[in-house]
Amino acid sequence: MSPLFFREEDPFAPIEYGYRVEELVCRRKTKHQELVIFKSAYFGRVLVLDGVVQLTEKDEYLYHEMLAHVPLHAHPLPTDVLIIGGGDGGTLREVLKHETVKRAVVVEMDTEVVQACREFFPAVAVGFADPRTQLVEMDGAEYLARARGEFDLILVDSTDPVGPAQSLFTTSCFSRAFSALKADGMFVAQTESLHFHGDFVSRVQRGLGEVFGLVKLYTAPLATYAGNWWTFSIASKRHDPEHVRRSCQLPTRYYAEDVHRHAFLPGSLYRRLVEEG
Amino acid sequence: MSPLFFREEDPFAPIEYGYRVEELVCRRKTKHQELVIFKSAYFGRVLVLDGVVQLTEKDEYLYHEMLAHVPLHAHPLPTDVLIIGGGDGGTLREVLKHETVKRAVVVEMDTEVVQACREFFPAVAVGFADPRTQLVEMDGAEYLARARGEFDLILVDSTDPVGPAQSLFTTSCFSRAFSALKADGMFVAQTESLHFHGDFVSRVQRGLGEVFGLVKLYTAPLATYAGNWWTFSIASKRHDPEHVRRSCQLPTRYYAEDVHRHAFLPGSLYRRLVEEG
Repeated sequence: MSPLFFREEDPFAPIEYGYRVEELVCRRKTKHQELVIFKSAYFGRVLVLDGVVQLTEKDEYLYHEMLAHVPLHAHPLPTDVLIIGGGDGGTLREVLKHETVKRAVVVEMDTEVVQACREFFPAVAVGFADPRTQLVEMDGAEYLARARGEFDLILVDSTDPVGPAQSLFTTSCFSRAFSALKADGMFVAQTESLHFHGDFVSRVQRGLGEVFGLVKLYTAPLATYAGNWWTFSIASKRHDPEHVRRSCQLPTRYYAEDVHRHAFLPGSLYRRLVEEG
Repeated sequence: MSPLFFREEDPFAPIEYGYRVEELVCRRKTKHQELVIFKSAYFGRVLVLDGVVQLTEKDEYLYHEMLAHVPLHAHPLPTDVLIIGGGDGGTLREVLKHETVKRAVVVEMDTEVVQACREFFPAVAVGFADPRTQLVEMDGAEYLARARGEFDLILVDSTDPVGPAQSLFTTSCFSRAFSALKADGMFVAQTESLHFHGDFVSRVQRGLGEVFGLVKLYTAPLATYAGNWWTFSIASKRHDPEHVRRSCQLPTRYYAEDVHRHAFLPGSLYRRLVEEG
């Protein structure tokens, strides 16, 4: 049989990634975007939104563990967590592994993504059935405008910062997040690749620095996001996010206490790539 | 004008990488392989051997600095250095930045690669004009069989370990390298990606462990090699390669003393991905 290919044409990445498709599982237009799920022999099922790979069964744990467990282990007692985006549920699943968490609010603009993931990625979307979860269909920036001192952690698990997700990366949105956090809260956002999106990373770090007292950057090596050397921008009101405050007792595949510390860039790279870059 | 694309179909990588081609610079059959050079708007000139990207002008420094400067700074006084492969000259250029180095032998099977790189990548191949350089046209494994206690460092800068380069990753070749080294010598080889070639990494680490007393793994995030989370296997007769023995005074863009230390995997990842993986 002739091979089928999916090719990701990310306008912000100079390399196009191609996947051999074993089977087209689902292809829908939601109210907001095009949703495709295909099966790859190597990666298992792959979720694609508007032409960009969002997760694969094989390696989603890496991104979701690092987005969730770094802030969750750096905070002394996280009980209220807000996830912006993250409709696939992977970040939620990791957040709910923490027994301290009493409430996890997922603010997702496109709840058809949630439906599709509950159907086709049940092991990823498992947290939506948890009684601690509250799913809100709304734009993340709007939700933040209404929240006041409610959350210990805000995790931005957005699509690429073009189109709708752009509004999440403005200084005004960072200020709203600051207000939505409790007095010792932390904010973290996925902020693209150091290889291909260095300017964006620098801009977010500076923007967060205008609002929060403590801003840092950590990274993880992701195979299926263009540029791979993925960054997470973390901003904190009080606690240093590099410091592990609660020992890790959870079943994780990538995250560990030494991985937490190691994920933060060495000083010379931070200066060259982020401050001067 | 219709866009031209180069697509890398690495049989050992589950993602195909595609590059938009501005200009086809050169396309030759050498005695050993097909050599293509094209120009990309983002990456500059790109060298391709048998369909696999070897270097791009934009990011070659990252790979070459990490292959060379980690062993060169971990060794107390490197004077004699052997490079196996590395016909583009990038590793040689970094090696020659060290004034301690009196002799750099490049053993390259395909010297037509050297010629093409001197012509089309003069800033990469600059070291071939250095009087300390000795270029030998020979198979690396054969060269090693004849050398005895001559080198402080052996750097394997090979193509992917399929085809001709396979012979460099056998225990018998590691034993030859051991014999070719002086009593406090070190051996380092590029060993592919932790994402896509974990089995190979584990196998090389075990093979080196049968021959050398001290074996470690370090990594660098490379954007243009499939899998990106690139590994370097380093084996040493006496000195711990994680330890920086000579302070870095060189003009480097990625390598630095803190980067050196940071490049070694945290223990939990090494155990999970390499020992158990």
